[in-house]
Parts: sequence; structure tokens; C-alpha cells
Amino acid sequence: MGKEGLVIVGGVAAGLAAAMEARRAAPDLPVTVFERTGDISYGACGLPYVVAGLIPSADKLVLHKPEYFRERHQIEVRTDCEALELLPSKSVVRVRDAGGEGREVGYDSLVLATGAAAVCPPLPGRELEGVFVLRHLRDGRRLLRFLEEARPRTAVVVGAGYIGLEMAEAFVARGLRTTLVESSDAVMGALGGRARDRVAEELRAGGVEVTFGERATAFEGAAGRVARVLTDAGRALEADVVSVGVGVRPEVAMAVAAGIEVGESGAVVTDERQRTSAPGVYAAGDCCEVLHRVSGRRVWHPLGQPAVRQGWVAGANAAGASSPEARYAGVVGTNVVKVFGLEAARTGLSLEEAREAGFDASETEGESHSRAGYYPGGSEIYTRLVADARGRLLGAQMVGREGVAHRVDVYAAALHAGLRVEEVERLDLAYAPPFAPTIDPIIRAAHKARKKG
Amino acid sequence: MGKEGLVIVGGVAAGLAAAMEARRAAPDLPVTVFERTGDISYGACGLPYVVAGLIPSADKLVLHKPEYFRERHQIEVRTDCEALELLPSKSVVRVRDAGGEGREVGYDSLVLATGAAAVCPPLPGRELEGVFVLRHLRDGRRLLRFLEEARPRTAVVVGAGYIGLEMAEAFVARGLRTTLVESSDAVMGALGGRARDRVAEELRAGGVEVTFGERATAFEGAAGRVARVLTDAGRALEADVVSVGVGVRPEVAMAVAAGIEVGESGAVVTDERQRTSAPGVYAAGDCCEVLHRVSGRRVWHPLGQPAVRQGWVAGANAAGASSPEARYAGVVGTNVVKVFGLEAARTGLSLEEAREAGFDASETEGESHSRAGYYPGGSEIYTRLVADARGRLLGAQMVGREGVAHRVDVYAAALHAGLRVEEVERLDLAYAPPFAPTIDPIIRAAHKARKKG
Repeated sequence: MGKEGLVIVGGVAAGLAAAMEARRAAPDLPVTVFERTGDISYGACGLPYVVAGLIPSADKLVLHKPEYFRERHQIEVRTDCEALELLPSKSVVRVRDAGGEGREVGYDSLVLATGAAAVCPPLPGRELEGVFVLRHLRDGRRLLRFLEEARPRTAVVVGAGYIGLEMAEAFVARGLRTTLVESSDAVMGALGGRARDRVAEELRAGGVEVTFGERATAFEGAAGRVARVLTDAGRALEADVVSVGVGVRPEVAMAVAAGIEVGESGAVVTDERQRTSAPGVYAAGDCCEVLHRVSGRRVWHPLGQPAVRQGWVAGANAAGASSPEARYAGVVGTNVVKVFGLEAARTGLSLEEAREAGFDASETEGESHSRAGYYPGGSEIYTRLVADARGRLLGAQMVGREGVAHRVDVYAAALHAGLRVEEVERLDLAYAPPFAPTIDPIIRAAHKARKKG
Repeated sequence: MGKEGLVIVGGVAAGLAAAMEARRAAPDLPVTVFERTGDISYGACGLPYVVAGLIPSADKLVLHKPEYFRERHQIEVRTDCEALELLPSKSVVRVRDAGGEGREVGYDSLVLATGAAAVCPPLPGRELEGVFVLRHLRDGRRLLRFLEEARPRTAVVVGAGYIGLEMAEAFVARGLRTTLVESSDAVMGALGGRARDRVAEELRAGGVEVTFGERATAFEGAAGRVARVLTDAGRALEADVVSVGVGVRPEVAMAVAAGIEVGESGAVVTDERQRTSAPGVYAAGDCCEVLHRVSGRRVWHPLGQPAVRQGWVAGANAAGASSPEARYAGVVGTNVVKVFGLEAARTGLSLEEAREAGFDASETEGESHSRAGYYPGGSEIYTRLVADARGRLLGAQMVGREGVAHRVDVYAAALHAGLRVEEVERLDLAYAPPFAPTIDPIIRAAHKARKKG
């Protein structure tokens, strides 16, 4: 490692995880992080809870300030500094400070942690004040300021992905009359059927008007401010504020311009050490692909936890660490969201995803009780399992009022280890009346899946 | 299978699971269950919650009455009918109905599901009224009647196993001044150190007086009713009622007399099809040994969930089913208990157990937050991991106010699959701010264990 050290582009989850792990691996290595916004080290996933009023301000989502990294870890963090161009052949990145000129910065190794951008569909009226696409902390700050100043009374959320679900609940918590419009028939991308129905019921019980199979087609307003969302069902939904959450795309423009390979998903291709196709250049987090351990394919799976993991791996390798554990094992696609009093979770592949990936897959579903039947306060957990014809577990979806968020992790561990449903059925799980029935819902669902298989 | 059919001795968890699975496997097979008490099909684990007043009566713990099995499943259930003697060479069991004579019943196959008996140490005064050893539903009914009639104001619980912990909480819930005396320095058999301290703090905060390393030596009373528990520390603890929970022993007298092999643990030896050493005789549940998948040893592990599983396997095999899945996979030793607002759980081996089993084992411990740091309502989860010198996970212990009971199951799945701590560290677990931090406590603990290893 030369004297120019490690340069990291992006100062949120993956970028700072890389910086910290590089520092641990190489105590004297110069490490510099460039972040194009004014914020670093924050949990963007907390924004809906700030909107809801559960967390008093967006500043509470910030874990550390630049000084922390500089003073405690000798990591130089430059905010409001945008990386403009990457020249791998010269080991140089061109950056520009706010209001400044572009300048060249040399590196020995570089980590791309440029993340993902929220997609706003090119609909008429999307430039109206009051239409928000939440991604970065600054987006959240703008929305919060708007809510304070404009005092909206009606809200429309476009898209029932996990951010959409959280935002619908958040708007209701703020007292807004809220409508959620989802163009597909699923929530969280792949949760359909009875799982979707339970989430929809919970939203409606919470006061959200929900429609599926209805697409937003335009935003209309007055005096430059949004007032209505038009849909392909011919409706005009009142909307003093709109949150659009229809997807994200990897931020790869600089990587593409530098000739770095991107995959079919549009995200940067890396190996298990998070190396890109350019020598000395690593990538981590929402800008790159990951191995999906169930399908065996490299997919784009932009989520916070994998981002931090990849950051550790990229940082360790970029700092020259050669420990065998500095490899990223990939994901199994685990995800959970709170929707009012409900926990909705998934891991692995849905039936459609499994079939699309070439598996001879089928699914079983059922409900079972979260606690011993005689113990008060329990409720039904809906579970759907996907397995292949030979009984290998491929995926699980769970929805319930308690005990779902961590139970799904047992299926995630089973997917990681490649267990068959009959092996899941044999797991020795914790039992006590307040927490589970004698035979846990995890086991009941596996039992059903095996009997069918 | 001949016409005498299947006879099952014992009508609670394992026995009835065996009966039901046999019925599924062989729709026309005669199935008879003999239960020596008047109760069948109940959840004894619920008794502390009846005592606490959380469940209105012990009858609520009964799932089905004998008529249900007779009318719906053509399973003959005889309560108050004790099995006296087993003669495997003649395929006959001698039984006696309440108040009746002994009679011989022939069988084609037989399942021993005789369970376990609670141990009451041979202390002076143990025959006093008000000294209870809880095991069967009738024990609970007697205790409840005593509580109603004698209106005790002080209680002593002897033994900090999971029943002792639950009973201490239950007595406090009923308004009794309660003392818990444990002779070892651990709770739940093997939870020591900081895990034990957190449980003890919770008990004390809940109003229980707790001492460790202090042994009950005698019960004293007046007019035949208990009034005090004496200890080896020279104390006399006021006790209008006493719950003794210092252990259980397998009910194997009939099996031993029949020449059936019992293991070093004192429980019946079976193979993975739950066959005993006597032809045609199977055993399931708390009367028999199980394979501990981590140590590879056959151990005695009397708990409800393994009992039901073994019952299924015994029933299927005793009914002549030859499906490859009718094998019991063994346990990894998972257990959880609620202690006031705390969840305390373990799976696998403790450090002492691991060393005793021949592993070159060490442990790491730490605390991490149950939710995203900025999300309100979270708390610290204490985790201790035991691993061998090559990084194989051997056991886990967790204590916390939320998210422990199911998180421990992820370690249980990892133990079942034989994962190394570095593989646990790489699991892709569910993340959302209300349920977990970006990097789950499960991962943090594994990370710490690997770094040490």
C-alpha cells in the first residue's frame, strides 16, 4: 500500500463501514471519505419514524459527525464533496467541493459506495412542491419542513414497498387522511395473496385507504403546489403531500463512465472480496450486485444490513487485509417491515421468483398460533413456504402481530445452510407458553410443506 | 400388525402425539392409551400462569377430553388406569383401573410415555401440608385449592430452574411475599455469570428475595402445615406455602422391571425410531434419552417439545409406518423462560458442558441493542457464545427484555446445521428499526466470537 492510501466515495452505511474496517486492518493507512451531501453516518431507515413523530428530529438518526471519524479514527471525512470522475488507469478520482473547482485525488485503493437513488417516475407534475421521494437524510428534512410549514391534511403514498408502507403509517400518525396506491397486487415487492390481504387489512384498520392494481398517472396542483394524484382508474385523489416510493436504481454513472463492469441488474459487478473489474477499485452497498445464495445468481438487493457487511469486506480488502474471512457470503433476501401492529417478513425466493430462477417449486401456506393456546395475548401467524420438488427450502413469508420479525431469521439461517423442509421440521426450538406453542409455527409450516412434498 | 393393536402408556404430550400419529399412519389400527391420573392432554407448562391468575383455571390447560380421541379418532383413552407391569416376552401389559383388579392387555406394539416425576429431596418436614412439588395437572389443582383455602401470605420457592423462576413470579403476582433459594450459583441449570445476574436483578426488581449458594435443609411447621424453610446458611425463611422444583427423574420403574435397557442418565435408551431394547416396545418423551446433536451423546432432556416430536416418531413406527422421515433427529438443548419482563434462553452447551463433553471450548460475551439505536423502546440483549478452538458454535445464552425467545432459535438452527461462528456472522437476517439494529445482536455476538477465535 502506497502513501496515497484509501479513498472511499460515499459516507453512509457501506462507505463508513469500509472506512472503519480498513482502519482496523491498517492502523496507519490514510483513509479519506468523500460524501456529496452534507450528511454522513445516518440511518435513513429511520425517516418514516421521524415523520410519524416517534423520533423527535432527523438529527437523531445521525450516529456520528465527521469529527468523530477524524479525531477518534484518523479518517478524513469530506462532506458536500462530490466525486465527478474516476480514472482507474491513473488511480485518480476527480472531486469537487461545494462551490469549488474540480481537483484530482490519487489513491492506492478506492471503494465505491455511491448507493442508490430513489426513482421518481416521469409523471406530469412531479416537480410540484409537496411531491417527495425519500432517500437521503436531506430528503427527509425537506419533507419535515414542508409538513411543518404547509400543514397538509391529505396524503397519498405511491407504492407499497416497505418505505411506502412505513410512510402511510407515518402520515396517519401525523393525523393526515392517507391513501396508498400500489400498481401491482403485492406489497413489499413479492408479498401477495393472503399475506398481502393481512397487510392491507391492517392498513385499512389503521385508517389508510388502500388500492392495488391502480397506477398513479399524474400529479396536479395549484400555485406550484400539489393538490391531487390522478390514477389510471380515473380517480383524482386529494393530496396535499405525496410520497413516491416506487423503486430505487443503483448510482453507477461514474463507475460506468470509468469502464467498470455492471451486471444485468444495472449494478456494479464484484467478486466475493468486493473487487470490481477495475484494479484497485472495490464497491460495496446499494451500488453493487450481491450473490443470492438461494438462486445462485448475482442480484441487486439494496438494503442496509448487506451494505454494512459488504462495506466491512471491501474495507478490509482495500486496506490489504488478506484474512480468509474478508469475503462476502451473499444474501438470502431477508426483509421485515412493521405495518401498524403487524410484522410482515420474507426471506429467500417467492414462488414466482423461484420458478423464474428455474426451480420446480411449489408453496404451502397456513396459520398457527404465536403462543401456547391457553396463554393470553397470542395471535395467528400466517406462514407461506416455498420449496423445490426435492424438499429444499427456497423461501418463507410470514405475517403476524408478534414473533414474526425474528422467527423469519430461523428460515433465513436454514436457507443459508441449505436445509430441507424436513430438516427445518426437526429443529429444536425454544418453547415456553408466553412465546410459542409446544410446536412452533416455524415447525408447523415445515411439517405442512413436507407432507405436501 | 395383529389385531391387538397399539397400546400406549401415558396420556399427556408424548403419549397422545404417538396415538395421533399412529392413527394417521394406520387408520384402522386399534389404539388404546392408559393414563394413570385423571387428566390427559394438558399443558403442564401452563400451571405457573394459572397460579399467577393469568389463566383463570387449570381446566383451561386441557386441550382435549377422552371423548375427543374416542369419537373423533377412534383412540380409546382410559384415565385413572395404571400400568403395573410390562411383559415384553408375552407382549402383554398388566393394568389396573381405579379401585379395580389388575388385568392383562395384549399388544402388537407398545409405546412407553411414562414421563418424569418431580424430585422432592428427602428433607425433614416434606410431608407437611403446603409443601408442593408441581408436575402433573393434579399437583397444580392441589396447590390452587391450598392457595384458595389457606390464604398464605409468604412463599418460598426452592430451586431456580425454569419452573422455580416461573413459580416465584406467579407467587408475587398473587401477592405473596416470596423468597427463592437456589443451591447452585446458576439459574435454569446452566445460566451463570452476567446472565444469572440479570435474571436475579429482574427477580429482585419484581419483589422476589433471591439467594444463590444456599440450600434448603428442612421444612418446619405447626399443626401439620408448613411455616418455615430452614437453610444451610442458618436462616429460617417464613413460608406459608413452598414450591419445590429441584429436578425431575425419568419414570422408568416398569421399564426397568421389564428388562428394558436404560442409559447412564437413568432414562430409557432408544434408537432414532424410538425403539427400546425390547421388541415391539417404543418409548417417547420424558422417560427416555435423546441424542444431543452438539455433544453427540445420548442425554436425558425432559421437555415438552422434544416429547411431542418423539411421540410422533414412536407412533408412526409403532403403527408400522416405514417412511424415512419417521426418525427423531435429536435435540440441541434449546430452552427459554419468561422472568417478569425478561426473556432468558439457552441452546447448545454451556462452557462447562462443552468442556465436560471433551471440546476445547471457550466463550465470549457482550451486550447489544435490541432495536435501531434511534428507535424508542429498545433495550440491551446480553449474549454469551461458546465455540470450540476451530470456530464451531457449541452453544448460546441470551438474556434481554425483548427479542430473545426467537433470536435464540437462530442459534439453535445454526447448531442443528453445525455452523461455525463465522458462518453465523454472515447470516442475512431481517432488519427494520423497530425490530433490530442494522447488524443484529446475533451477528454482533458471532463477530466477537470469531475475532476472539
